[in-house]
Amino acid sequence: MATYVVILAGGAGTRFWPASRSERPKQLLPLTGGGALIAETAKRVKPLVDGPHRIFVATGKKLVDATMHALPEIPQQNFFAEPVARNTAPCIAWVTKAIAERDVTAEIIVLPSDHHIVDEEAFRAVLRRALDAARGGHIATIGIVPTRPDTGFGYIELETPPKIEAVIAKRFVEKPDRSTAEAFVASGRYLWNGGMFIYRAVDMLNAIATHAPDLLTAATTAVADPGQLEYVFSTVRSVSIDVAIMEKLPEIAVVPANVGWSDVGSWQAAYELGAKDELGNVAPTSSVLLEAKGNHVVDLSARSGRTIAIVGVEDLVVVETDDATLIIPRSRCQDVRDIVEALRARGEADKI
Amino acid sequence: MATYVVILAGGAGTRFWPASRSERPKQLLPLTGGGALIAETAKRVKPLVDGPHRIFVATGKKLVDATMHALPEIPQQNFFAEPVARNTAPCIAWVTKAIAERDVTAEIIVLPSDHHIVDEEAFRAVLRRALDAARGGHIATIGIVPTRPDTGFGYIELETPPKIEAVIAKRFVEKPDRSTAEAFVASGRYLWNGGMFIYRAVDMLNAIATHAPDLLTAATTAVADPGQLEYVFSTVRSVSIDVAIMEKLPEIAVVPANVGWSDVGSWQAAYELGAKDELGNVAPTSSVLLEAKGNHVVDLSARSGRTIAIVGVEDLVVVETDDATLIIPRSRCQDVRDIVEALRARGEADKI
Repeated sequence: MATYVVILAGGAGTRFWPASRSERPKQLLPLTGGGALIAETAKRVKPLVDGPHRIFVATGKKLVDATMHALPEIPQQNFFAEPVARNTAPCIAWVTKAIAERDVTAEIIVLPSDHHIVDEEAFRAVLRRALDAARGGHIATIGIVPTRPDTGFGYIELETPPKIEAVIAKRFVEKPDRSTAEAFVASGRYLWNGGMFIYRAVDMLNAIATHAPDLLTAATTAVADPGQLEYVFSTVRSVSIDVAIMEKLPEIAVVPANVGWSDVGSWQAAYELGAKDELGNVAPTSSVLLEAKGNHVVDLSARSGRTIAIVGVEDLVVVETDDATLIIPRSRCQDVRDIVEALRARGEADKI
Repeated sequence: MATYVVILAGGAGTRFWPASRSERPKQLLPLTGGGALIAETAKRVKPLVDGPHRIFVATGKKLVDATMHALPEIPQQNFFAEPVARNTAPCIAWVTKAIAERDVTAEIIVLPSDHHIVDEEAFRAVLRRALDAARGGHIATIGIVPTRPDTGFGYIELETPPKIEAVIAKRFVEKPDRSTAEAFVASGRYLWNGGMFIYRAVDMLNAIATHAPDLLTAATTAVADPGQLEYVFSTVRSVSIDVAIMEKLPEIAVVPANVGWSDVGSWQAAYELGAKDELGNVAPTSSVLLEAKGNHVVDLSARSGRTIAIVGVEDLVVVETDDATLIIPRSRCQDVRDIVEALRARGEADKI
C-alpha cells in the first residue's frame, strides 16, 4: 500500500494581476516569501510519500512547461496535461485511474496547488489521520477550522463539534451569505471545505462508477488510449468533484485541521503571510525603503535584484513583473479586477 | 559668416535616479514628454543654422555613443569626446578653436544640453539678438528673467532693468542665499545665468588668449594633434567659462529671455512641464490610472508599452527603468539623493 499525492494545478485567475497572468497563474508565484506555491505544496507533503516519483501533478496543457520548471524533482511522466479545463472531477477520475492501473493498492492524497500552511508538521499529522480513515474504506476530506465568517468558501457541516480524529460529515454546503456564515462559525459545527481528498484509488473508482459512470468511461478511455485524450476532455462534462461525487456519498470522513491554513486569496493575504521588517514592510532585500511603512513589495521580474526604491509612502502594494507594474493601497487590493477590466476594455487582452 | 551651435553635454548627476545613471545622464532622458532633452535642444536651434552639419556636441568619452544615438542627424565628426571632465572652459576653448580652424568667420552659440524652453520661437528671437550683439564684437550671454528667488542659480546683475535688446552686464554673481535672492528678484535688475554664450570665434579666442592663455595652448595642441588630446585634458586645469573668462571681461552683452525656460532640475520640475490629464496625472498612454490624482508616471524601460497600473494614490512620482523602480511623493523628490546614498552605503555603486 503506497501513498501517492496528486496536486491539482489547473487554476488561473486575475486577483494577482500583474503577477498572475494566463501563462503564470497563482500557484507558480512565490507569494508567501518562499518558492512558488506549488513547490511549497510539494515540499510540504514529501515526507508522506516514498519519493518524488509518488507525486503527480495535473495542470493545463499551456502550463505544463512552467509547472515542470517549478517542480524539477518530479519525473516528467508524472505530469498530466489537461487539454481543456473541465473542473476537478474529470481530472481526478483520470489521474486516479492512471495511478490505479500501475498500483491497485494506491492510497491517494489530492491537494490544491496554491494554498499556504503555517504549521506543516501538524498538517502532515492531519493527512496521516485522513489516510487512516481512508484505509477504513471512507473517502476522506480535510475540514479547515474557520477563523472568520468567510463567504468565499464552501463549508462542511458536522453532527457535533470536530474532534481530532475523523468524523462523518453531515453535508456539504455551498458558499453562504454573510449572516449564514456567521451562524456557521458561531455553531462550532462547520468547517471550511479545503478541497483536499484522501482515498484508496479503488474506493474512488467505485464511487465514480456509482455516481458518475460517464466520468469513469472517460477516464478509462483516456488512460487506455492517450491519443483519445483530447477528444475525451473536449466531450466530457465540466463538473467539480464535490458535485459529482462528494455530495452524493452516504458517508464522508472529515478530519479537522487547525494548521494556519490560507488560500492566499489576495495581495492582502499574501502580505499577512510575509516576513515583515520593523516598520511592517514585506519587501525583497534588494529594495530600498526610506520612511516607508506597511508596504508590500513584490519583485517578479525575470532579472533578479531589481532596485525598488520606496520613500515616504504607507500601506501600498507594489508589484513588478517584466512588462507591468502595480501600485495600489493594500486595503484596495480587491480593485485589481478593475484594472483587468480596464485593460480588457482597451483591447489589451494580451496583458491580462 | 556662418552660425554654429555647440551643445555642451558633459552633465551627470543623480537627481533623476533611477532614470539618470552614469551611462544615461539627464540630457539623454525624455523628461518633458518629448524626446531626450538634448534632442529637443538641437531641434530648437536648427532654424538658426544652415543644417545639422553646423551643430557640434561636446560630451564625455563614455557618453558619445548614446549621445550620437540621440542625435542621428548630426554628422559623427561633429561630436567632441572629452577624455576627462574639466568643467566648461577647456571644452569651449577646444571646440571653438576647432571650428575656427575650419571657418575663421564662425559665429558660435554655446548651449547647455539639458534645459527646456516653452516658447521656442521667442527663444530663437533672443538668440538672434545675441548674435547681433556678438557681431558688434561683444561676447554675449542670455539672462533668464527670474520667476522666483531661486538659490540654485547664478545671477547676472544689470545697471538698469533689462530691455529687449542686449545691455552690458554689471557683474556675475554666484548662487546667493535666500534673502539675497529675494532682494535680487525684487530689484528687477538681476537675471539668471542660463549658461548660454554667443560670440564670434575670433573674439572668444582673443579673450582666452588674454585671460586664460594656458587654455588656448591646450586647445591649440588638442586641435593640431588629436593624439595628444588625452594628455591635454588630463593636465589642463578644471575651470568654468564663467570664472576663466566671463567674469574677467570688461563688457558682456546680456540679452534677457522671458521664454518659459526651465533647467528641469527635479522630478517636480519635469512634472510641471508635462501634459496632464483631467486629474493632473502625467503618464504614458500605456498606463492604467484609476482614481489616481496628480501622479507623475515615467516609463524609461527599454521594452516600450509597459503597463503601469496605479489605483487610488495621489501625488506620487513613479519611475520605471530596466533595473529599478522609484516610488516617492512628488513633494519629496529632493530625497532621491537619500536613495542614492543608501545604495552607496550598501556597496551597490553599480546601481547609481
